[in-house]
Amino acid sequence: MEKLKQAIETHGKCVSDEVVKVDQIINHQVDCALMDEIGQAFYDYFKAKPIDKVVTIESSGIAPAYACALRLGVPLLIIKKAQPNTMSDPLFAKVFSFTKRKAYSICVEREYLKPGEHLLFIDDFLANGEAFKGAEELARQAGAVIDGVGIVIGKQFQNGQAYLDKHGYDVYTLAPIKEIKDQHIIWAE
Amino acid sequence: MEKLKQAIETHGKCVSDEVVKVDQIINHQVDCALMDEIGQAFYDYFKAKPIDKVVTIESSGIAPAYACALRLGVPLLIIKKAQPNTMSDPLFAKVFSFTKRKAYSICVEREYLKPGEHLLFIDDFLANGEAFKGAEELARQAGAVIDGVGIVIGKQFQNGQAYLDKHGYDVYTLAPIKEIKDQHIIWAE
Repeated sequence: MEKLKQAIETHGKCVSDEVVKVDQIINHQVDCALMDEIGQAFYDYFKAKPIDKVVTIESSGIAPAYACALRLGVPLLIIKKAQPNTMSDPLFAKVFSFTKRKAYSICVEREYLKPGEHLLFIDDFLANGEAFKGAEELARQAGAVIDGVGIVIGKQFQNGQAYLDKHGYDVYTLAPIKEIKDQHIIWAE
Repeated sequence: MEKLKQAIETHGKCVSDEVVKVDQIINHQVDCALMDEIGQAFYDYFKAKPIDKVVTIESSGIAPAYACALRLGVPLLIIKKAQPNTMSDPLFAKVFSFTKRKAYSICVEREYLKPGEHLLFIDDFLANGEAFKGAEELARQAGAVIDGVGIVIGKQFQNGQAYLDKHGYDVYTLAPIKEIKDQHIIWAE
């Protein structure tokens, strides 16, 4: 998605060879018009699939996941990082955070992930794929099927993309980064 | 907003005289078509105001805040509950959670809240107004002005509404709850 790549080049900041900061347009301050086009791009790619529900993990994936789910005409399910005290019958999975060097739990109310449901997972970043693996584990427990993975910015030099490819997922990455070098992004395609 | 009230009556669950659980349509699983209408309702009410930015606190306010900000044509600023390690110059405020009986910090990158900016605060619930007071404190530190407050579900039997009224805020609540009694919602208007 050329417009997104240009926005990242203009407003993003390469903080290291592994981290690009996009908090001006994607995950802290949100450029809503751009986010709407991101939702459209995911919709265009996945619309032929029999998606029952879009899922994301709170909170940076919510805007792009919502923008796509609205167009698909399906509910958005927001996986929680902390169990709300009103959650009555949770499914849990562990996610390891490389940034924080520790594991945390994510959860969903069991009744919102049903056996046989077809899911589209959407997130703002794909790095090592740990958040995705947590969602995958929740889907497995529920008997639901992840039919597609939509990623806004994919850091393809980390391990997540290889994991998704190895397991045969249909992944659509809008801004795939091959490498960050000397504070510049080299796009994968 | 009649359609929202009906959806809450149909899909919500009164867990106590103080808590209505709407995780099937608003803050865990999201009914995106309904959320889109929520965004439209906020837009219709606030569109004449000179809003520069919509602000919310992660994560349940993101969908309604985004749906409104998109229509207003302004950025959405998501106040964070934990400081991302890429945040370089944060403003902090404390929020007291009645549910968890403890205070936590919220933060924004200083450059995204500018002196003189006009803000519209949007959240899914208004209870005691503690989250709002945190946003208000960040705005005060930045020299920004909160010009409006959009609330999806207002628990008007708690202290938040009185606080907002006392301080002269222009508040628009889509589903104002006067009371929850015998597992039934009594609407305020």
